[in-house]
Amino acid sequence: MVLAGAPKALLIDLAGVLHVGDSAVPGAVAALSRLRQSGLPLRFLTNTTRLPRRAIVALLHRLGFEVGEAEVLTAVHATRQVVRERGLHPHYLVHPEIVEEMGPSAAEPDAVVLGDAGPYFTFDRLNTAFCLLMRGLPLIAMARNRYFQETDGPTIDLGAFVAALEYASGTSAEIVGKPAAPFFQAALAELGVARGEALLIGDDLRDDIGGAQALGIPGILVRTGKYRPADEAHPEIRPARVVDDFAAAVDAILHD
Amino acid sequence: MVLAGAPKALLIDLAGVLHVGDSAVPGAVAALSRLRQSGLPLRFLTNTTRLPRRAIVALLHRLGFEVGEAEVLTAVHATRQVVRERGLHPHYLVHPEIVEEMGPSAAEPDAVVLGDAGPYFTFDRLNTAFCLLMRGLPLIAMARNRYFQETDGPTIDLGAFVAALEYASGTSAEIVGKPAAPFFQAALAELGVARGEALLIGDDLRDDIGGAQALGIPGILVRTGKYRPADEAHPEIRPARVVDDFAAAVDAILHD
Repeated sequence: MVLAGAPKALLIDLAGVLHVGDSAVPGAVAALSRLRQSGLPLRFLTNTTRLPRRAIVALLHRLGFEVGEAEVLTAVHATRQVVRERGLHPHYLVHPEIVEEMGPSAAEPDAVVLGDAGPYFTFDRLNTAFCLLMRGLPLIAMARNRYFQETDGPTIDLGAFVAALEYASGTSAEIVGKPAAPFFQAALAELGVARGEALLIGDDLRDDIGGAQALGIPGILVRTGKYRPADEAHPEIRPARVVDDFAAAVDAILHD
Repeated sequence: MVLAGAPKALLIDLAGVLHVGDSAVPGAVAALSRLRQSGLPLRFLTNTTRLPRRAIVALLHRLGFEVGEAEVLTAVHATRQVVRERGLHPHYLVHPEIVEEMGPSAAEPDAVVLGDAGPYFTFDRLNTAFCLLMRGLPLIAMARNRYFQETDGPTIDLGAFVAALEYASGTSAEIVGKPAAPFFQAALAELGVARGEALLIGDDLRDDIGGAQALGIPGILVRTGKYRPADEAHPEIRPARVVDDFAAAVDAILHD
């Protein structure tokens, strides 16, 4: 997929693109300022489900990024919408930090909802979720990312635990965040642009670039975060461009 | 696959067949005594990797089963043999109970070996194993069972954590216990019988019956342990017979 003219709006991933853990990617703060001056409308799409949106935005502010809370679309919020729209009463296996956004687990649940509980993924919690799935409850996962990049190395992500529960129970999870189409579509709707008019910047070949590509949104892959050289040789997922980092992506967009 | 004449030896699964958790399956102790009187040579094959062999045998003795330690082939022992034959220095993510059989983890490991750590599957331990796999180390799993049946319900098993690490790291695990062919072949070699001369009794359609079937060993599926009615309609794995429990399997073998 190639860039077809100047984009009218940008979809930007957060972790691995603007920052890695508690550090801004070098040059990314200034690059975001340049983007703001261009007036291009932006939405930030994140599969991070260990933190509530206000904490994600607070971290970005601490690192020097100008990002408004309403510009950030999180897999947690998208999942909350799914739960409300369907009138579900889930059992939640999620990080304690996002209980404020999701609410408490139901005593008699009709679904199992998984977020990235991180260290709170214990055997007992996984087993409780497993037993509910064995009773036939559906499994809804906020995301199924394989890993994310921390400053000290890669960290196993929610996707591993989704795979664990799917394998043990014989269930297939419904994924709400990237690469699910409705998540990207919600961002396009907020921005008021068509698929071919938007451009995505991400570090996750499968969930960012692949998810966008499936919808006809071209993607720029950055060589930061969880990027691996093998990503450039994937047989099916083809970024419109691969650049060193967010600053290079912004330069390519503003100067092409 | 059908029974072709009287078997010359039996392969018997333990958990879910002779006992469920700390309780003997009703009638199983007496049925094993009847089998002993028939003189048929037996081997017990277990994918249980939370306990060392002596503890498994001690549990069977407590429940009233006559089983000699040398008759029990465990996935743990089979894995120890693989490690020794290949001269590996693994990082172990296993239950503390079996450290005595496997030895300590190497400081500079060249493989990751997984057993059923049960409650000791913590996020940090999984993440340590994941980081080693991301460096390219091979993954060896003692088994990949989906779940096992406890007296109070199903319990998530090692296979879930194998699936988790495979998914996150993009690695495929080598499985040592059932349904891997070498594990069954070792039992046949000890018994000195050919494939078609042995018969297996198990409660796990995929790992017991399916593994044996792949080698040409017919299997009797018992309706105890992790058995589910849907097992009787599997498109590819066809037990030679399905019976209510171990006692019924023994009756079928001795009186057919």
